Amino acid sequence: MAFDRLIENIVKTQNPSVVGLDPKLDYVPEYIKEKKFKKYGKTLKGAAKAIWEFNKTIIDEIHDICPAIKPQAAYYEMYGYEGVKTLYKTIQYAKEKGMFVMTDGKRNDIGATMEAYATAHLGLTDVGGELVEAFGADALTVNGYLGSDGINPLLEQCRKYDKGIFVLVKTSNKSSGELQDLMIGNKTVYATMGSMCELWGKDVMGKYGYSGVGAVVGATYPEQLAEMRKALPHTFFLVPGYGAQGGGAEGVSKAFDDHGLGAIVNSSRGVMCAYKKEDNCDEHDFAKAARREVIRMKEDIISYLPKITLE
Amino acid sequence: MAFDRLIENIVKTQNPSVVGLDPKLDYVPEYIKEKKFKKYGKTLKGAAKAIWEFNKTIIDEIHDICPAIKPQAAYYEMYGYEGVKTLYKTIQYAKEKGMFVMTDGKRNDIGATMEAYATAHLGLTDVGGELVEAFGADALTVNGYLGSDGINPLLEQCRKYDKGIFVLVKTSNKSSGELQDLMIGNKTVYATMGSMCELWGKDVMGKYGYSGVGAVVGATYPEQLAEMRKALPHTFFLVPGYGAQGGGAEGVSKAFDDHGLGAIVNSSRGVMCAYKKEDNCDEHDFAKAARREVIRMKEDIISYLPKITLE
Repeated sequence: MAFDRLIENIVKTQNPSVVGLDPKLDYVPEYIKEKKFKKYGKTLKGAAKAIWEFNKTIIDEIHDICPAIKPQAAYYEMYGYEGVKTLYKTIQYAKEKGMFVMTDGKRNDIGATMEAYATAHLGLTDVGGELVEAFGADALTVNGYLGSDGINPLLEQCRKYDKGIFVLVKTSNKSSGELQDLMIGNKTVYATMGSMCELWGKDVMGKYGYSGVGAVVGATYPEQLAEMRKALPHTFFLVPGYGAQGGGAEGVSKAFDDHGLGAIVNSSRGVMCAYKKEDNCDEHDFAKAARREVIRMKEDIISYLPKITLE
Repeated sequence: MAFDRLIENIVKTQNPSVVGLDPKLDYVPEYIKEKKFKKYGKTLKGAAKAIWEFNKTIIDEIHDICPAIKPQAAYYEMYGYEGVKTLYKTIQYAKEKGMFVMTDGKRNDIGATMEAYATAHLGLTDVGGELVEAFGADALTVNGYLGSDGINPLLEQCRKYDKGIFVLVKTSNKSSGELQDLMIGNKTVYATMGSMCELWGKDVMGKYGYSGVGAVVGATYPEQLAEMRKALPHTFFLVPGYGAQGGGAEGVSKAFDDHGLGAIVNSSRGVMCAYKKEDNCDEHDFAKAARREVIRMKEDIISYLPKITLE
């Protein structure tokens, strides 16, 4: 139920971090691109095939030490429907390997349309009576600006298919405060959204104290992480902004509870492009470099946490 | 520039309405589904092919009397990457027929990721030096919760490729007020977002007084339509909620300026399912019924407006 499987994966790997698979073509080693462009031309299909090999190789190398991946839909849509096919294959492959998959789509709409998004990304699509998985992720990031009409259809799928959502609360970017930090009475917009998460989560509680309605809270705002951790005891946090965006492990530790749980920290470029940053790393070893960065990041984060345990 | 082409289409057709192509399989006539399921099975591909025939036939029938279509991404994603391929084909076909295409995706993210969405839906993707159109819509709906970091990458594509965006301001659903109607100082959240639209639009002004940054303001809130029309003189409105959701033509008229411009009203189900509502309409005539509904809706809306003119 809810994020229970994610939490179990985190405890098993003792790793509260998730690898963001946001594969711009620039990140893919030249030898893979050359091979695919030779076969398919410099086309969206060629790009999508290159990204698929890149993703698959990274998943093969990290699935035993990393609890989850977070593919960002934008980077697949950028390569058209061929790119979106690679998104599907990536989700399915990571799940086969036992990883928890969160699609980062920040989807939002209302009523029947939000049901369609929920069905697309978390549920099963009815095709003339046959139920088919369109994408089949375990969780989806969503934007709550439209209120409960935008969230309720998701909760139904979460209950039915044992899935979760992460609602944007306080994002990691510099201009996040333009709206999110404004005051509604004596509460910020982001705290107001956070309270809605606790409310929405009541009907999808998991067995480890966290509901199926998580929140995105950026690593770049440690004070707000601490404030939200205290205010939202049943809300699991997805924390972007570690590394490239400037969030450090000590700040990030504010997102966790006394058992080293309650949050998962994302790194995308840091892992995908690790081979570019290491001295003398052959590009053929890109996935091994990714593995080394996953381990480095994990050690960095858990050095500020209590032992991760379900007890 | 900006929404100039949309405005010219509206003047030419004397029709300030847009058809939302949100094709659930339920909306597609049985004879089309039977044909495609026979050929491709009850699969996502079969569903996607059925939807493509449905969309194409409607576009063929209405393109001379309707300025624009608004495909809703969720209904294509629901049928997996095959569905997303149908989205691409629908966009390209409607543009060939001279229609203005707004993809309703309510996308939102920051920095490089928002650039990826902008590239995907409005721009050109770089594949090893070749520039390829991934989806190629004329405009995209977006969610501004993340602030300027989420909007600036879009404005760059709007300037470069002559495209537009619609930012969610006041949505048409019942629970839209949970966040959007709350007060930030002496201003609602939605009015605050509206002011940001005017600001963001300054650098992408078109020649008819409207910028490339439009706003979504629901037909179900006529008072807010009037308030926003007055407060946001350079912001073009996309108005959902007419018909099925309860918004009437008189209320909707508040979204327009003194030249009958400044807004476009959406209808989705009303048009797509017109054949189901007409007495004794053969399902083979679904597109002719759609055309009749487009005309009925247009007459209804313009009966409350001054003559639509650029003078």
